Amino acid sequence: MRALFLASDNFEDMEYYATRDVLRRAGIETVTAEARIQPAERIILGREKAEIVERIPLAQAQLDTFDLLVIPGGGHWVELAKNPEVARVIQWFAARPEKYIAAICAAPTILGAMGLLKGHRYTCFPSMNRDFGGTFIQRYAVVDGHLITGDGPAACVTFGLAIVRATLGAEVARKVANEMYFERFDEEVLGA
Amino acid sequence: MRALFLASDNFEDMEYYATRDVLRRAGIETVTAEARIQPAERIILGREKAEIVERIPLAQAQLDTFDLLVIPGGGHWVELAKNPEVARVIQWFAARPEKYIAAICAAPTILGAMGLLKGHRYTCFPSMNRDFGGTFIQRYAVVDGHLITGDGPAACVTFGLAIVRATLGAEVARKVANEMYFERFDEEVLGA
Repeated sequence: MRALFLASDNFEDMEYYATRDVLRRAGIETVTAEARIQPAERIILGREKAEIVERIPLAQAQLDTFDLLVIPGGGHWVELAKNPEVARVIQWFAARPEKYIAAICAAPTILGAMGLLKGHRYTCFPSMNRDFGGTFIQRYAVVDGHLITGDGPAACVTFGLAIVRATLGAEVARKVANEMYFERFDEEVLGA
Repeated sequence: MRALFLASDNFEDMEYYATRDVLRRAGIETVTAEARIQPAERIILGREKAEIVERIPLAQAQLDTFDLLVIPGGGHWVELAKNPEVARVIQWFAARPEKYIAAICAAPTILGAMGLLKGHRYTCFPSMNRDFGGTFIQRYAVVDGHLITGDGPAACVTFGLAIVRATLGAEVARKVANEMYFERFDEEVLGA
């Protein structure tokens, strides 16, 4: 299982690093693609200055080698929403039913603006929710088939476990949760 | 309010980055000190390859400019426990009642081995608990005066909020929690 993460400056620190940590604990390989419109040499800095050094240009990501696209939230959503390369990648994953898309906080609204939440159960940063044509549910994580969404920064660990459950199954997710001493697996992850 | 974080290779990604994110959201300034026994040029890498570029050598940290010491868990605890400079810094904070010490996962066991958990309520990574002379409580976070402890990776957000509550008060902590859509403030943070 391979996950492609998108990040630009002002990503939300914990939504990137905690989610990535949970996925890697489950044995999912992760690659981060730079989603700046103008890729730059300097490292990518989160809202609270979390640092991303190792990444590839998004244009060089071999999409067919990935099973899963992960989009953290944070202020970088503005740039992501404007980047035609990001839209191309999201559409590529959305068009393939065997692939997964996971987005948290502000990021699901990018999918919503593209019409990809229509008819789906989802969550997002509550104050950013609009009429996207789907069913908004305010909770840490919502899984609807191949779409996994999270509502805000505090959801980061639950969101990661919900991705593991959707992609690798409940048994693997429960094992990872137990190793982290996660407390509410049944209600938060199985119930997502 | 200023917090000094300690990190060496193999720190636990989310315990460093999510905790730090929560503190910074509360307006706490953070500085990371490199706790390698042999400081090196290469960046510090977490267990799951989270990256720390910006840091100072621990020997150069002006301890009296900090209010709070934060020690994330992860495999770096072995090196931290062996580093005499780390022991010196912990003792410096422990000897000053107006300062705070926060440790999560494997890190509280370093305090325990130094005798600093004696007579205190605390938590730590449950399988690493020993008879440290205090009262072990298995939950996400435990606050006992100026000592804040967390039990494992899944506790990272709650642990950060417990630090904010202990240092800046419940009102500030609740505001930060609400902005992150944290769900169980009363039971997990006020109850810590």
